[in-house]
Amino acid sequence: MPQETTTSGTGQASGAPAAADLHAVLQRFYAEQMQLLDSGATQEWAQTFTEDGVFAASGQPAPVRGRSAIAAAARAAREQLDRAKVVHRHWLGMLTADPRADGSVLARCYALVIATPHGGDPAIHRSTICEDVLVPANGSWLVRERAVTRDDMAHG
Amino acid sequence: MPQETTTSGTGQASGAPAAADLHAVLQRFYAEQMQLLDSGATQEWAQTFTEDGVFAASGQPAPVRGRSAIAAAARAAREQLDRAKVVHRHWLGMLTADPRADGSVLARCYALVIATPHGGDPAIHRSTICEDVLVPANGSWLVRERAVTRDDMAHG
Amino acid sequence: MPQETTTSGTGQASGAPAAADLHAVLQRFYAEQMQLLDSGATQEWAQTFTEDGVFAASGQPAPVRGRSAIAAAARAAREQLDRAKVVHRHWLGMLTADPRADGSVLARCYALVIATPHGGDPAIHRSTICEDVLVPANGSWLVRERAVTRDDMAHG
Repeated sequence: MPQETTTSGTGQASGAPAAADLHAVLQRFYAEQMQLLDSGATQEWAQTFTEDGVFAASGQPAPVRGRSAIAAAARAAREQLDRAKVVHRHWLGMLTADPRADGSVLARCYALVIATPHGGDPAIHRSTICEDVLVPANGSWLVRERAVTRDDMAHG
Repeated sequence: MPQETTTSGTGQASGAPAAADLHAVLQRFYAEQMQLLDSGATQEWAQTFTEDGVFAASGQPAPVRGRSAIAAAARAAREQLDRAKVVHRHWLGMLTADPRADGSVLARCYALVIATPHGGDPAIHRSTICEDVLVPANGSWLVRERAVTRDDMAHG
Repeated sequence: MPQETTTSGTGQASGAPAAADLHAVLQRFYAEQMQLLDSGATQEWAQTFTEDGVFAASGQPAPVRGRSAIAAAARAAREQLDRAKVVHRHWLGMLTADPRADGSVLARCYALVIATPHGGDPAIHRSTICEDVLVPANGSWLVRERAVTRDDMAHG
């Protein structure tokens, strides 16, 4: 994901109510998005991406392109989890979000996947960085681009 | 916990300042509530429930009813941890909170219990879903109903 | 860190927009601060402390005093991680922040260090309490005092 110029940063703007509101609103957006995924509502989850959304993840051969392909990939992953009797919870945190001149937002956060087998102990399955380009839509946000980088595959 | 109609959702409303404020205020509420519990202030922790508050948790035979019973249960759990020389930290995250027509709020979040034995390594003790009915009180909030569902006991 | 009188608490004030804004703004501040540290920008990370900032951590023989000493300590820790081929992610959460009469803020949160070895599985390296005195600077905040207490070294 290119490091583009943003319209706000650490300075003056991040103390403003608008920046605070955006931070809280995006936390809510991510909470809702991940609750959908983790509860198996993969179709609804895919609706939080744009129609032409792209999902790239380290460890996957190629980015997944388009909402229906994203939905299908999530469904397949879910069915595998169900067969393995494992519950996944996606925790996103340590979010920074910077509006860009075109109205989109560049968001960067940490993401953990907590895996709990039926009758077993929870453990951290993955620790990752999640970088999104978010675009406004219908009073909320949609993900146009997502890049997930696994810490275990990060360059030394 | 019944899925009731809420007055806001993913759409227009969640971008509004009021929704952003509620999100931040409830995060603060939960942070304070859990800091009380984890620091052993079980009596003060119980004060964050209504007098007739109900705490239901998967893995427990029956819900705990009423503030004083909730306080007693927390105190007993704490004494057991102290004897075992284990520190618990409750992390709540991925919060969604929706106001309802009656002024209460339906909140849903993920909750982890991180356990660290004296001189040992931390580990995730539990991964759960926490669903609350919150009611306004004295400018803050109280929990009227809490339902905690453990991921290890979730239905496949 | 002394328990000083704060100008707001659980009550009326914590429902106010100003308190909500502060909560969101400080979450953003911590996210940015920890992203700097974890990405190896230790010099920029040290700039989030005051020139005379103090960093005290249980398990260390003495507090680190002053921005340049803080930067040097962070750089040394980073180089050790790089040699060990381990990625650290600092997660801060469960934040409470209370303004004090002098304009500073007393912040308390939980902090986890998630460690992921190259090619290996993530695990919780540390579970801690982080207590900060924050002071306003250039529209953002700086850490004047930080005290980190490890749960594994906490008194039973």
